[in-house]
Amino acid sequence: MKILGIDTSSMAASVAVIEDNKLICEYTINTKKTHSQKLMPMIENMLGLSDLNVREIDAIAVCEGPGSFTGLRIGMATAKAIAHVNDIPVIGVNSLEVLAANMNLCDKKICSILDAQRNQVYTGRYHYEGTKLVEIKEIGIQPIDELLEELAQSKEEWILVGEAVYKYEDKIKEIANIEIPAASNNVTKAGSLCSVAKVKFDEGKDIFNCYTVNPLYIRKSQAEEQYEEKQRKLEEERKLQEQK
Amino acid sequence: MKILGIDTSSMAASVAVIEDNKLICEYTINTKKTHSQKLMPMIENMLGLSDLNVREIDAIAVCEGPGSFTGLRIGMATAKAIAHVNDIPVIGVNSLEVLAANMNLCDKKICSILDAQRNQVYTGRYHYEGTKLVEIKEIGIQPIDELLEELAQSKEEWILVGEAVYKYEDKIKEIANIEIPAASNNVTKAGSLCSVAKVKFDEGKDIFNCYTVNPLYIRKSQAEEQYEEKQRKLEEERKLQEQK
Repeated sequence: MKILGIDTSSMAASVAVIEDNKLICEYTINTKKTHSQKLMPMIENMLGLSDLNVREIDAIAVCEGPGSFTGLRIGMATAKAIAHVNDIPVIGVNSLEVLAANMNLCDKKICSILDAQRNQVYTGRYHYEGTKLVEIKEIGIQPIDELLEELAQSKEEWILVGEAVYKYEDKIKEIANIEIPAASNNVTKAGSLCSVAKVKFDEGKDIFNCYTVNPLYIRKSQAEEQYEEKQRKLEEERKLQEQK
Repeated sequence: MKILGIDTSSMAASVAVIEDNKLICEYTINTKKTHSQKLMPMIENMLGLSDLNVREIDAIAVCEGPGSFTGLRIGMATAKAIAHVNDIPVIGVNSLEVLAANMNLCDKKICSILDAQRNQVYTGRYHYEGTKLVEIKEIGIQPIDELLEELAQSKEEWILVGEAVYKYEDKIKEIANIEIPAASNNVTKAGSLCSVAKVKFDEGKDIFNCYTVNPLYIRKSQAEEQYEEKQRKLEEERKLQEQK
């Protein structure tokens, strides 16, 4: 069974194919070039050099979020399109689990973070029970200082994984029980996405089709928040004028 | 500082660029297509999509072996050519250390293997001391059954990493203290090569130039062994005829 994985939840765009338990190919570009410019050329080049036709793909694994709103929509739209054409299932995996899976078979506790702006991070906590990656705290959004304080207070050894660690590197390095992975393991990789998706598929979990799979935003976008705030203020003004 | 990594020691061809402590891009193709057909197109496509010019590269990291003889020569020739044109250093990293670095920050002992044909494997043993990958047994060549027996007898928990594990999967799965990584972590990746090379570069270790870097074959090729055997027999026959 061949699974094509697509992850565009962060600055990195990453695509990969696994067949059963083997990685066939993986391609990651972690630059500021937009996902809309790089995603399809990456898939085309990778499948071509691997002598694979997109028609041979049996399932799509897509990162459903949380992460960059525009990024998620580009990845999701691409996944839906390929799944629609091939009439194949779509397996949804959250971005924080994908990052944690980079630390495969690690004995330490794993905390994944993705930048959520305004000194907040999307975060999830995991550990490996044997070869199985298990969620130990539900994913959510949290101020980075509060998260670091919680990890420092816990008596566990932690690995803090995700590109957002570079933004808060000075603070993190002061905390004795937190380690940061090497460059090669600290970026979202579609190979890890595919490995997580394969386990879910075998367990019959989180399997969607091109109509039912959807992004997981966790919070509203800044534009939506501002719109709602503006509507609230207009409503208040309207009420004040009615009272006059 | 930008390091371009090239690894062609196994069936996988893998290239990557890291800048300081960040992975910029990584591309891995793990199919039977020959390295000579896929290596340069991969580098060209990856640098292009990352908006990088090959002239911006400050050092080359190359996998020096052990591994596929032809594969190593293709990677080494490419590394030498780019290093010569850019007049930049070449950092040599062995293939078994690259595989071990996939298991970044792992607490278990790590044993890397690469198929050496004739039921033998190239193998090295490592563990992480903090963030540092340390060799605990010198790399060498060993019959797979002997290696598995040694690991099973040891009282440690081991991770056996490298594509050769699939060839001996049935035997390995019977051994309680050995685990096999997920698909995404069980293939040679140039990002891991670059991470190892960066540490070596900072320590001033294993830094060569385009003239001084060379493959590490460990054993002679089958063609060389057969040639030497033939020469030995001819010599014996010559001596016998002289005695007559």
